[in-house]
Amino acid sequence: MKQKRFFLSEEDIPRSWYNIAADMPNKPMPMLNPQTLKPVTLDELSQIFCRECSEQELNVTDRWIDIPEPVLEKYRYYRSTPLVRAYGLEKALDTPAHIYFKNESVSPVGSHKLNSALAQAWYCKQEGITNVTTETGAGQWGTALAYSAKVFGLEAAVYQVKISYEQKPYRRSMMQVFGAQVTPSPSMSTRAGKDILTRNPNHQGSLGTAISEAIELARETPERCKYTLGSTMSHVSLHQTIIGLEAEKQMEMAGEYPDEVIACFGGGSNFSGISFPFMRRNLMGEKHTRFIAAEPASCPKLTRGKFCYDFGDEAGYTPLIPMFSLGHDFMPANIHAGGLRYHGAGAIVTQLVKDGYMEGMDINQIEAFDSGMLFARAEGIIPAPESCHAIAATIRRANECKESGESRVLLFNLTGHGLMDMSSYDQYLRGNLINYSLSDGEIEKYTQKLGGL
Amino acid sequence: MKQKRFFLSEEDIPRSWYNIAADMPNKPMPMLNPQTLKPVTLDELSQIFCRECSEQELNVTDRWIDIPEPVLEKYRYYRSTPLVRAYGLEKALDTPAHIYFKNESVSPVGSHKLNSALAQAWYCKQEGITNVTTETGAGQWGTALAYSAKVFGLEAAVYQVKISYEQKPYRRSMMQVFGAQVTPSPSMSTRAGKDILTRNPNHQGSLGTAISEAIELARETPERCKYTLGSTMSHVSLHQTIIGLEAEKQMEMAGEYPDEVIACFGGGSNFSGISFPFMRRNLMGEKHTRFIAAEPASCPKLTRGKFCYDFGDEAGYTPLIPMFSLGHDFMPANIHAGGLRYHGAGAIVTQLVKDGYMEGMDINQIEAFDSGMLFARAEGIIPAPESCHAIAATIRRANECKESGESRVLLFNLTGHGLMDMSSYDQYLRGNLINYSLSDGEIEKYTQKLGGL
Repeated sequence: MKQKRFFLSEEDIPRSWYNIAADMPNKPMPMLNPQTLKPVTLDELSQIFCRECSEQELNVTDRWIDIPEPVLEKYRYYRSTPLVRAYGLEKALDTPAHIYFKNESVSPVGSHKLNSALAQAWYCKQEGITNVTTETGAGQWGTALAYSAKVFGLEAAVYQVKISYEQKPYRRSMMQVFGAQVTPSPSMSTRAGKDILTRNPNHQGSLGTAISEAIELARETPERCKYTLGSTMSHVSLHQTIIGLEAEKQMEMAGEYPDEVIACFGGGSNFSGISFPFMRRNLMGEKHTRFIAAEPASCPKLTRGKFCYDFGDEAGYTPLIPMFSLGHDFMPANIHAGGLRYHGAGAIVTQLVKDGYMEGMDINQIEAFDSGMLFARAEGIIPAPESCHAIAATIRRANECKESGESRVLLFNLTGHGLMDMSSYDQYLRGNLINYSLSDGEIEKYTQKLGGL
Repeated sequence: MKQKRFFLSEEDIPRSWYNIAADMPNKPMPMLNPQTLKPVTLDELSQIFCRECSEQELNVTDRWIDIPEPVLEKYRYYRSTPLVRAYGLEKALDTPAHIYFKNESVSPVGSHKLNSALAQAWYCKQEGITNVTTETGAGQWGTALAYSAKVFGLEAAVYQVKISYEQKPYRRSMMQVFGAQVTPSPSMSTRAGKDILTRNPNHQGSLGTAISEAIELARETPERCKYTLGSTMSHVSLHQTIIGLEAEKQMEMAGEYPDEVIACFGGGSNFSGISFPFMRRNLMGEKHTRFIAAEPASCPKLTRGKFCYDFGDEAGYTPLIPMFSLGHDFMPANIHAGGLRYHGAGAIVTQLVKDGYMEGMDINQIEAFDSGMLFARAEGIIPAPESCHAIAATIRRANECKESGESRVLLFNLTGHGLMDMSSYDQYLRGNLINYSLSDGEIEKYTQKLGGL
């Protein structure tokens, strides 16, 4: 029998994160202060984020950043995560492709999000912070922060996008088990929330809105409360590179190297995490791996967004970020992959798309769930709706390999399990899911006011 | 940093199950045909179960039973499961005890149940069976059978205890994702179900009733449909010994041997699975490990049940089984640990209790959830309500170690995660859980008609 799963021994778990900015031929463009339109400073960033994360955010020179020992210790509660050869899926597809996936769903909170939450919570604790705030869409990031705050003795307040709060009540319960306060967003507890509810009392919430609310709460007491973010920012992508760094070693154990690396794409953190360590070899000219970011067709920032400076949140509290964006007031359709309902891509990923190192691929909701069902039955893991997008892209490529007879090595990131998303599977099983696509006119409506770059 | 998790390489995963009956000084008493009151024969058992499982059920001589290769191949999708040193829990309790747990929650279906479901489905497939039926309480066994049937190309029909069907709708969704038909029990589709609903239209269901319905369905077409059971029977315990056989090797990697092995107790399969390989050393006189079966105070068959011959199901379709029992018509309170709401203990375990090799410990519902919450926050895994009972017993023992200053080695089985049980945690968080205890009079009412042995 050929080996199915590959683990690293605890001493082989990487002890540094990889900062791709150090190796990029064109550095990411700077974030700007929206008042001065000058590059944002460390002090300005530190008003929102903790100091260490702010420094990491601006660091484009140090290739390796040490993982603090207490974070490493908590990583060992679930890392290494397994690299799995998807024999079951290969058989179901009858493809000559070799399919591997990195299974991040095994973390205590059920997704990759914990990799950065633990780091951010630890740095906050070190800096004397007592409270952290954040937003959450599908609930994966909020759960990760809730758990991390509990681990390091902080209080956590989470704004959960209202549609998710209602669709997935048990995500809220999970956060509460880990001791967090959870508020549906938009709420009346912040000015940003009140403004939106005044304009639209039935507002379903969006990640952009929830971010505004969380930042506003943090700003009330900046000396003891910091905001934390689950994606988009460069320091979050940095923390997620533990995924790819492990996968690099594990692929070596399997005796293969990926021809293609595939991940779903919301703000970019899991994509960055699994891709950047492999992309490094492309940047060095050693390899020619293809990198595919699977985004929902209903929120297609990479393939149809505008390259521009835009805010990361709805109310405009963040710096201006160089982004592929659909506009910070873009209201994505209520697809079940709540974690992918975000309007923009982070600065590093945006530059890498511009420079041709990676590409987007749009996936419709029903194809995503079709793929997730096939995967569940073949591999025994019910995937999160977000992960279904990566699986769909992988299956497309595996089917193309079948047509061409190529035995390419495909590696995708299974970001999380779908056990908190069974209501979405219920909808699928009843035939109630629909696809949402955007006309060019709709895209134009949202992006015309954005200044192009 | 000391090692947190212990895995076996795939070639070190055990290739045989351990049949403790071969080593017992007093063999388990035979099951009886209720008509003839003679020991049940292989042919009679094979009317209900597949032939291979029936043979295993009656086998009291072969110490090791080979695991079929196709089952081993599917085991490798999730096995070895990690043995984990619970440093987080030890710290939270400030105990000198060394606490380990075997994490069976990582299986595709979220519990240990898969270990036997894969075996039973494979044997059925081999024997030309096309359909399997079963009952499920909490839904863990039903999910395991649904997945296993899909894996080996069988159709599965699952009767789910009505109270669980309603409390945990997403368990039903999981079974449906894996392709099973799910019916709430009691139902109008069987004579057993109709009889019960006629007597009590609001009957909430019980494992005993659901078993009757599933057996009745299987008996309609015995040549192509077999019944499968998730606990109680000796062959199910046999399949579960993979847990303890792995744990034995993993404890060796950790350089320790358990002074106490603790597991929750419904019908006995997970308890048997983790205990029997260690108990073998007690039977051989080499070790003096203590074995604790944590059962709910509301369903205390081991500590307060009667040693007798009783049916395994409500309608009396099974053979008579030598059991510690509360009576096959016992209606347990609606505790959230649905998997522990069963009236009797299997033949082997019953004999081992009689002979003093193991003991029961009763746990109330609120203590179980208190313990589960503490564990979730300390170790990052939200445990199933069933597993909370094992955790509660472990915490009791760890606290006793703290009092006495003893550094004993405690090993418990984490049977499953609680992600499909968040409604129960919700009830807990809102302070709505209550304890149920049984007066001696109530126990007497149920057990007085049982003939003692």
